[in-house]
Order: sequence, then structure tokens, then C-alpha cells
Amino acid sequence: MPRIALGLSYSGSSYLGWQSQKGGNTVQDKLEDALRQFSGSPASERVVTNCTGRTDTGVHALMQVVHFDTPLEREEFSWMRGVNRFLPDDIAVQWAKAVPSEFHCRGSALTRRYAYIVLESPMRTSIERQRVGWSHLPLNLKAMQEAAKVFLGEHDFSSFRAAQCQSLSPVKTLMNLSISQRSAYYRFDFEANAFLHHMIRNLMGCLLTIGRGDQPVSWASEVLAAKKREFSAPTFSPDGLYFLGPTYDEKWGLPNRTVAFDWLPL
Amino acid sequence: MPRIALGLSYSGSSYLGWQSQKGGNTVQDKLEDALRQFSGSPASERVVTNCTGRTDTGVHALMQVVHFDTPLEREEFSWMRGVNRFLPDDIAVQWAKAVPSEFHCRGSALTRRYAYIVLESPMRTSIERQRVGWSHLPLNLKAMQEAAKVFLGEHDFSSFRAAQCQSLSPVKTLMNLSISQRSAYYRFDFEANAFLHHMIRNLMGCLLTIGRGDQPVSWASEVLAAKKREFSAPTFSPDGLYFLGPTYDEKWGLPNRTVAFDWLPL
Repeated sequence: MPRIALGLSYSGSSYLGWQSQKGGNTVQDKLEDALRQFSGSPASERVVTNCTGRTDTGVHALMQVVHFDTPLEREEFSWMRGVNRFLPDDIAVQWAKAVPSEFHCRGSALTRRYAYIVLESPMRTSIERQRVGWSHLPLNLKAMQEAAKVFLGEHDFSSFRAAQCQSLSPVKTLMNLSISQRSAYYRFDFEANAFLHHMIRNLMGCLLTIGRGDQPVSWASEVLAAKKREFSAPTFSPDGLYFLGPTYDEKWGLPNRTVAFDWLPL
Repeated sequence: MPRIALGLSYSGSSYLGWQSQKGGNTVQDKLEDALRQFSGSPASERVVTNCTGRTDTGVHALMQVVHFDTPLEREEFSWMRGVNRFLPDDIAVQWAKAVPSEFHCRGSALTRRYAYIVLESPMRTSIERQRVGWSHLPLNLKAMQEAAKVFLGEHDFSSFRAAQCQSLSPVKTLMNLSISQRSAYYRFDFEANAFLHHMIRNLMGCLLTIGRGDQPVSWASEVLAAKKREFSAPTFSPDGLYFLGPTYDEKWGLPNRTVAFDWLPL
């Protein structure tokens, strides 16, 4: 049966994360509903989709890559426009492509990229609520950048792993953790072969604790070495966390395109 | 009675615009409710506020300036933090300042600044819905920039005036109408001594018609010269329109600060 890959962007604010749940208010449920309606299948026939990054409640995606098998033959353009008609206005298919059955959106992914945006301001957010995290205290950029270096490379990230994490191993390889500042906004870029459950939100908790001056830069090494969750900082809010997308081998010929990958104006 | 000025930012998506209405679901109603609760006044005692730009449904504000008279004596910091506690999470006071009674937020304003953000993409918006306008057709930046020049300076803008406009005169002075592009996003900046009702949304309709190639650049002059609304293009959607704020004489000593004035990183 032909396999279709989709690139999906969505706001996570109105959904209970990616993964399907009984109430149906998840991104996966909305997508599978839309695929079923587009296919003209009865409500009892679920179109089962696989995703690359299971985003939490409130976490946004600029390029979630999904695949599913379908007997339906449609033009790629038709999958995009057609499925979008049945999706809520905060979820949109950005591209669609027929892929060989050896391709698996999760298994074939080489790395995953995420970004956090955090506003530093004495006043809380309003217009950018849910889309940026917030620190009411000033942050020390250099201290956070120094601390970030400690996490680069292959490590046992047990100190940043949620209790409910299902990963077989706590050892992951972090290829990038860079922090930049633009007026009152900080951007944190993460790239790894894979992430543990809540790993990014827990790393953020640690980095912001150091950024606020509540712990010295050296604390990052201590927390990492402890390999125990209870040594670290609280999990940071999902507000401002974006799944930027996976990277794949060029042989799959997948589009590396999304309209909002770059800095978005306002 | 002392007069207080406030700088306010808000998302317009959940409200029926600025101006108070019977149902109460407007930004002015939410602010006046919050001021009343902060003051500890009974529900029957309305705190009457004045604003600088009456934003439509769906139009956002980065710095709406408001003033009101109050017998209550509080620190400026207390007005900010205290009133924010009673405001919904998509409205926030950014600053507060005691001003002399000669100051009037609308009457004292020298100019108003607005910006539109428009996404050019074959796929509709998702994560940035309501925050950016959308053109599914490619736009010609140079043609729009040429057309924009026609509107600069003092003109009778009757062709861009809504029927319900209450302004005494259709003659306004446009000091700036600049258009820039960044990846798939266009930003349109407007500054005038004052704007007619729907003037910016109607100018946008005209500029986008030219940008899509549906009319030549010379059409801008024709529409302006006609001085009749029915000669122009449809009013553009409020999605992506931001009130950036008024400018005032320095003598009032008002802060010219807002956290999201610049381009916001996604």
C-alpha cells in the first residue's frame, strides 16, 4: 500500500499534545479525522498516522513530519489542499510526498530540532502569550551560553528525564544548544539524535536557573553528573517551545521547507 | 482629580474591538472592569477610559495609550502590576504614568503608527493564524512600493473611508507608508496624523490588488483621485494588523517603550 509523508505545522495551545487520546482533542486525532473525511471513509475506519516528535500540550510545531499508508491515489497538491479543508485553522499541512515503504518518519530521522523563545520583561506577556516563555527576572546570556556547552555531545541525560519516559536508553547526543538574544527575546536552539521525554523543558529549567543567577555556571556539570532527576531544576513551561522538525538523508527527497522556519516578523 | 496614562498591549482576536459594547466583550470593557476591581469600587461605579486608537475586532495593539481620572493614589509600579492581575491573559498594562490634566491621550497624539504583516504562501496559516494576513498569490514588492508613494502627504482619503466614519474631515496626512519583505512575510508600516475608519484596511486592499497584478501601479492614483469608496478594492482582513502606538511631544515624558515593538523572533 502506498505510503504518504506529510509536513504539518500547528499551534499546540488548544490541544492535549500530539498523541491520540480518548477525548479526541489532540493534534493526531484532528489529523486522522481530516484524513478520513478527505478519503471519504466511514467514521469507523481510522487512518493510523505515525509522527516524528510527540509534542506535549502547548508545544507548537513548525514542521512535524507524519506518515501513513493509504490505498487512496491522489496528487501531492491534492493531499495538501484537500486535507487542510478538514483541519482546524490552527493546524495546516505544508507539504505532502509519496515515500517508499522503507521510509519511517521516526525511524529514518537523523536528528530533531527544537527552539524555545523566552521574553525577559518585568511585565507579563499579552499578545504573545502561549507563544513565548516568560522570565520576569533579567537573564545572563553569557552564563547560560557557558552552561550550555556542558550538555553538548553524547551524555546520559537521566537528570533531565521525565519519570514516564519510554526511551530504551537515557544516552542521547546533543549536536547543538545555542542561545541568542534579540531585544528582550532569547532564542534557545536544540538539536539531538533524539530527546528524552521532557528533556528540553528540563534543560531549560536548568539554564534559566543559571541565567537568573540562582546557581553558578558550574551547577550544569553537577546536575548532568548526578544522573538523577531530583538534582535538577523544575520543568519549564511549554509556552514558547517549537518543534522545528526532523532532518533526513537526502535520498528520501523530502522538502526541507516551511514558511515559518526563519525568524517570524512580529 | 489626578490623571493616569497607561500603555496597553493586547491581542484583538478574542474581542469585539476596543470600544465598549453592551455584551462587555471588548478591550475597553475588560480594562475598565480591571481598573474598578483594582480600585475596590462597587460594580456600579464605572471608571471611564479614553483611548488613542479605536481598534476593530481582531486588530492587535502593541501600545494602545489610554488615560483616565481617578481619586486613587498609587505608585506607578502598583498600577501596572495591580491592574494586570485583573486583566485577561491576552491584555497587559506595559507602563503607567501620572500626567497633567492638559494631557489627553487622543488630543495630544502627534501621529499614530500601525503595521500589517502578510504571509505570502500557497498554504494557509496555522500557528500564525489571526496574527498575520494571508495572500495565497505571489506579491510584487516593487509594484506595491511604487503605488504606496502616491498616498504619502496630505490627501482627501474619501476613497478609503468607511461609511460609518465619524471623522470631521476626510483629509489626513500620511507621513510614512513603507513596505519591506523578510522570507515569506511582508511588513507594511503606516504613520499619519490620524486615520479615517477602515483607512488602513482599505489602503491594504488597494495595495494587495496591485501587488497581485490585478491592477497596474497607476490604479492607486485613480482610486485616490476618485474620492469615492466604491472605486477602491475590498477592505482587507483585520488579521495581521497591529496598532504600534501614538507619538507624543517629549514634554509629556511618556515612556516610548514596549517589549514587542521590534520584529519578534519565532
